[in-house]
Amino acid sequence: MSKLYTEMSHEELLELSSRLNKEYRDAKGKGLALNMARGKPSPSQLDMGMDFLDVINSASDLKSAGSIDTRNYGELDGIPEAKQLMAGIMETSPENVIVCGNASLNIMYDTVSRAFTHGICGNTPWCKLDKVKFLCPAPGYDRHFAICQHFGIEMITVPMTPQGPDMDMVEKYVSGDESVKGIWCVPKYSNPQGYSYSDETVKRFAALKPAAKDFRIFWDNAYAIHHLYEEEDRQDRILEILSECEKAGNPDMVFEFCSTSKVTFAGSGIAAVASSKANLDDMRKSMTVQTIGYDKINQLRHVRYFGDINGMKEHMKKHAALLRPKFEACEKVLEEELSGTGIASWTTPNGGYFISLDVLEGCAKRVVALCKEAGVTLTGAGATFPYKNDPKDSNIRIAPSYPTPEEMAQATDLLVLCVKLAAVEKLLSK
Amino acid sequence: MSKLYTEMSHEELLELSSRLNKEYRDAKGKGLALNMARGKPSPSQLDMGMDFLDVINSASDLKSAGSIDTRNYGELDGIPEAKQLMAGIMETSPENVIVCGNASLNIMYDTVSRAFTHGICGNTPWCKLDKVKFLCPAPGYDRHFAICQHFGIEMITVPMTPQGPDMDMVEKYVSGDESVKGIWCVPKYSNPQGYSYSDETVKRFAALKPAAKDFRIFWDNAYAIHHLYEEEDRQDRILEILSECEKAGNPDMVFEFCSTSKVTFAGSGIAAVASSKANLDDMRKSMTVQTIGYDKINQLRHVRYFGDINGMKEHMKKHAALLRPKFEACEKVLEEELSGTGIASWTTPNGGYFISLDVLEGCAKRVVALCKEAGVTLTGAGATFPYKNDPKDSNIRIAPSYPTPEEMAQATDLLVLCVKLAAVEKLLSK
Repeated sequence: MSKLYTEMSHEELLELSSRLNKEYRDAKGKGLALNMARGKPSPSQLDMGMDFLDVINSASDLKSAGSIDTRNYGELDGIPEAKQLMAGIMETSPENVIVCGNASLNIMYDTVSRAFTHGICGNTPWCKLDKVKFLCPAPGYDRHFAICQHFGIEMITVPMTPQGPDMDMVEKYVSGDESVKGIWCVPKYSNPQGYSYSDETVKRFAALKPAAKDFRIFWDNAYAIHHLYEEEDRQDRILEILSECEKAGNPDMVFEFCSTSKVTFAGSGIAAVASSKANLDDMRKSMTVQTIGYDKINQLRHVRYFGDINGMKEHMKKHAALLRPKFEACEKVLEEELSGTGIASWTTPNGGYFISLDVLEGCAKRVVALCKEAGVTLTGAGATFPYKNDPKDSNIRIAPSYPTPEEMAQATDLLVLCVKLAAVEKLLSK
Repeated sequence: MSKLYTEMSHEELLELSSRLNKEYRDAKGKGLALNMARGKPSPSQLDMGMDFLDVINSASDLKSAGSIDTRNYGELDGIPEAKQLMAGIMETSPENVIVCGNASLNIMYDTVSRAFTHGICGNTPWCKLDKVKFLCPAPGYDRHFAICQHFGIEMITVPMTPQGPDMDMVEKYVSGDESVKGIWCVPKYSNPQGYSYSDETVKRFAALKPAAKDFRIFWDNAYAIHHLYEEEDRQDRILEILSECEKAGNPDMVFEFCSTSKVTFAGSGIAAVASSKANLDDMRKSMTVQTIGYDKINQLRHVRYFGDINGMKEHMKKHAALLRPKFEACEKVLEEELSGTGIASWTTPNGGYFISLDVLEGCAKRVVALCKEAGVTLTGAGATFPYKNDPKDSNIRIAPSYPTPEEMAQATDLLVLCVKLAAVEKLLSK
């Protein structure tokens, strides 16, 4: 058990500072070059899935159900089997699903863009409004916030809790402000904390009473099947949002997104949106002008490889086996080195792609800079907040997926050293 | 040599009508079910290209040039070899190219959509303007016009000639009206006429003096390498627009588009945009928010299959061998049955996917309806004009690609019968 840094005397801090600085100089000498910045699959995950590329070849029958020739134009919605497969990820029905191209981010962007140019379900296009606001649970996913910023959408930060966003605040804004048109959610294994929304949170979402008729929940179910553990009690579950909204009398309030970018290959997966018939019909009006159809051969490749959602879930166990040791290597170092110091707290998620680390207020940027100087790249401090502005300068997102477990341990060794160093610097400067 | 219908006496027309009606009744009895409506590759074309699916498999090295792992995230622009390949189609340099997803239509839509939400190169977003107009050479591609209609862009019809759009009119509108922001062009083997723009036309395009700083030419080079004949003198060539615009002092005036939808597989090809650095940088600002990157494995699949643009051109000869007999079967029937009648004229293109047929004014809708009733589906009359409104009700687009040559002959037999029938009806009703 370490001593609380905040209870150390000035002399103790000075001594610690001297020791840590020496350790840091040594660390810099190692010439590390490690990257914990982005949630990218590792080469070993990619190698593991190579047989995916064999299921479709020149001898394959490329007819989909209903005799659709996947090699030709058409089928805006995606082939029926792919709709079924992606519905399985989102635990909804195929009729609620449109399968699109290679990236759910692209669907999200297009959904916002379409709202700006054409409005949602007959409502005023957002480009005609003076002000459009989104609620942004934070820490959250930087690319969600980037979409808002790109479209000039005002972002309102909503604090995250282990049960999900602060729902009192969400309810207040959604029911009280007609210019609040959306909220970004990563409901399961949230980015970056790995929190999963509680049943109460989901039910409160479904029961929202929006002031704006075109308010929509952007439910980015990116990690729906991305468990790290096989034990039932270490697999998070969330309520299915579409049916909850329907039950609550808000059938059209959600756009749900998912993809196989971290299931098969990043960039060569398939992505899907799930929503009510009214919302999907509205989207189709634009989509049918935007494209004749997405890559159906790749859709079929997914279907043939996995068979069904159960096959996909089995496959995810192989990813988990590769990812788990990395998360655990990181968590072990964090626990051993920072537990009881009072200068950091972190999450230990059951799934997803990230660990969230909170350091002493005002130290996150300094930690990231120190790490970078010594050869370990982290996501920029602040990136997890709207406008890249973490008001406490405290949150750091750790992405354990890309390095090996050994590299992850090494990188975290350096990280904790930098966390300590920044903390001591801060405490000494008081 | 047939007799000019317009010179027939009333009695002759009556007799002809009676004979044609009998023929039509017989034709209906045949129970035809043929489709000449859309420019879809035929199953035999798709079968021909199946080995495309073998070049990437689990044993493949999926590293692209510069050690890019195509299986992972990144490379917004596309992999370098794919940029090179697509640049080859457009006869430009790879640095002018971004390789995107599966459909050039999608890039075109996104380009218009982006102009609405963000403006082009710092100019006012089109959504903030009272009026946005596009010039639409017609007959033209219905999906271009659909994009305009979807965004509320006012379409101004510009007549087509065998040398390209009426450039006097184009110059007048572009230089005289600041609300004219774009023009749709299919410069080679135009849809539906199969005309290729003359050097003079391209040079006049490059030398335009737009009133609007954000006027852009939407140069849809969809059929750049889609020749029907191998003889040099039967392969149309057009000047390369980007360099012509640069020479003329208008480096930023063009967005060029192309895809491999009719080279490999429709829906599973790759698409690209070519433009100036300023325009591409402007696009990248949005694209980097919209996506992390497109399907690089499919890009690599194309590169490995074709090697380079010469490999692709060789491959196109196989498509030509399959398509040519269909065009010729159609043209033979048109020639034999309609030549000298004075009731129809048609194009005999050297490439592309369409033949354009002009029937007696006021007869196109009737011909399409008659064909449909007897089991042959044609593109809806009017579809080749803005707002689906062919002012003369004269133009019919024939898509010979999908049926077999025999079916194409059968379908054209029926078509010419319906053209005659509609003409006689019209002449008798005078």
